[in-house]
Amino acid sequence: MEGDFRSARVAVVGLGLMGGSLCAALRTRNACREVIGVARRPATLQMARDLRFIDRGTVDVQEGLRDADVVVLATPVRDILAKLATIGPLLAPGTLVLDIGSTKRAICRAMENLPAGIQPLGGHPMCGRETSGLAMADPTLYRDRVFVLVPLPRTAPWALAMGCSLARGIGARPLVIDAADGEASVAEGCPAAARHDRLVAAISHLPYMLAAALVEAAAATAEEDPLAWELAAGGFRDTSRVAASDPTMMLDILATNRDEALRALRHAQGQLERLARLLEEGDLKALRRAIEAARNRRMEVLS
Amino acid sequence: MEGDFRSARVAVVGLGLMGGSLCAALRTRNACREVIGVARRPATLQMARDLRFIDRGTVDVQEGLRDADVVVLATPVRDILAKLATIGPLLAPGTLVLDIGSTKRAICRAMENLPAGIQPLGGHPMCGRETSGLAMADPTLYRDRVFVLVPLPRTAPWALAMGCSLARGIGARPLVIDAADGEASVAEGCPAAARHDRLVAAISHLPYMLAAALVEAAAATAEEDPLAWELAAGGFRDTSRVAASDPTMMLDILATNRDEALRALRHAQGQLERLARLLEEGDLKALRRAIEAARNRRMEVLS
Repeated sequence: MEGDFRSARVAVVGLGLMGGSLCAALRTRNACREVIGVARRPATLQMARDLRFIDRGTVDVQEGLRDADVVVLATPVRDILAKLATIGPLLAPGTLVLDIGSTKRAICRAMENLPAGIQPLGGHPMCGRETSGLAMADPTLYRDRVFVLVPLPRTAPWALAMGCSLARGIGARPLVIDAADGEASVAEGCPAAARHDRLVAAISHLPYMLAAALVEAAAATAEEDPLAWELAAGGFRDTSRVAASDPTMMLDILATNRDEALRALRHAQGQLERLARLLEEGDLKALRRAIEAARNRRMEVLS
Repeated sequence: MEGDFRSARVAVVGLGLMGGSLCAALRTRNACREVIGVARRPATLQMARDLRFIDRGTVDVQEGLRDADVVVLATPVRDILAKLATIGPLLAPGTLVLDIGSTKRAICRAMENLPAGIQPLGGHPMCGRETSGLAMADPTLYRDRVFVLVPLPRTAPWALAMGCSLARGIGARPLVIDAADGEASVAEGCPAAARHDRLVAAISHLPYMLAAALVEAAAATAEEDPLAWELAAGGFRDTSRVAASDPTMMLDILATNRDEALRALRHAQGQLERLARLLEEGDLKALRRAIEAARNRRMEVLS
């Protein structure tokens, strides 16, 4: 539906932490005409109604999507893929379909198969918590956070503008990812999605893998000496935090971004091997340079 | 000086983030008779006086230690080693010498060479920030944090008790590390120090090395596509935080704990290679098991 987001009926499919918080933000900020929740379990819908996060809700996807001008898919990535394969016939022509999954290539490929009258748009809000579920939803989750939008070659300008309005409507800062220079001609359905997946592999999926490795490596020491956990302070806590992320969400992310996650991981392994060699050789001058370089970089990019 | 910590004169050598915060906590909480600051630069002493973190201060180590009942060494580890080699003759018999360096083997070895009348005690408060310097000092830095105490074989019970009083005096929770079972007979000067260094390698130095590798690996991606940093959210921020730690402090830590840091790093490298293989092989069942194991572990040890 071309037009004003404020007059849109928005159906959100999946009322977990991300979908629930999105509904809560839309309702709290009065950002659109109606918020329709779609969930698998009636108890989830009841909680969403009780919290006033949705105007109405249903377990029936067909019913939920029938009157929607905007559909937001907010389930784990592989569930989004399954839904994209089936919802086409349920959507009215002119509907905007936006997802908020954490990887974009597989999703944008699946979006290409939606009926011609539908407007698809990839989305990825750069926020999240290591908690999950509607009970942890928070209307301020998206506030001042970057909300990445990944247009497909077929996405109309008005649909992209509508996605930006939705992002602003929940308090986020829209950031449109275009195909990087020189990549537009790559034999790939959606160059912007490929660019997105490479970036988040380094900036989001790699931190997860390092955190998970940290937890398991520390556990090996703690098995020899359980006192280890009592010494865990802020450094361990922060560095390992994302290891507590929802497992289905993380598995779907890694499963749909294997090559780029592996590429980022190989980079990090190279860095760690470099550190290991400096320790082994006792080359303290080079070790100091490595420590100072990492610190300067961290302070430069994140103040 | 055997006796009550409340009547002790405490000299703190090094007024950076850790030493400055320790002085501030002692003064704010009125934990001892007098706080004497020792720093290299007069401007630092002036700031410490202005902030009422110390009762008096001096750039002259001899003058600072002359009347002290308790001496706290709060400089980077290798500077502590240098000071331990020279301060012996400056100390009155019965003085307690405590350090707050992040590694303990090298320091406890150096403490063994203090004159017989001196009571040495290793210390390691499990807190810290990626900031440094007296301007960032905070009287609440130690509050409710674990303060590890590492007694040497020669440390008298009263000296250990005094160290516990100091820890409680700044609001921290003292935790005495003993030689682990079966390690007491190891041919090592201070088995408790060896135990400490192995534990912190896994729980503190490893997070640092992973954070530094993350920053450099992400930088490699960002060099190809600077948009990467704009996508950095809480996950990247938290996982990379300790990479901004003070370089001299970190270099000294790794330089004096090379073997254990390397051992922890090799553990983590093994975990990362396991993840890399699962990604390469696309073994999603095993990947799910790995993800769930890390999550359960993280939630179990840190709620």
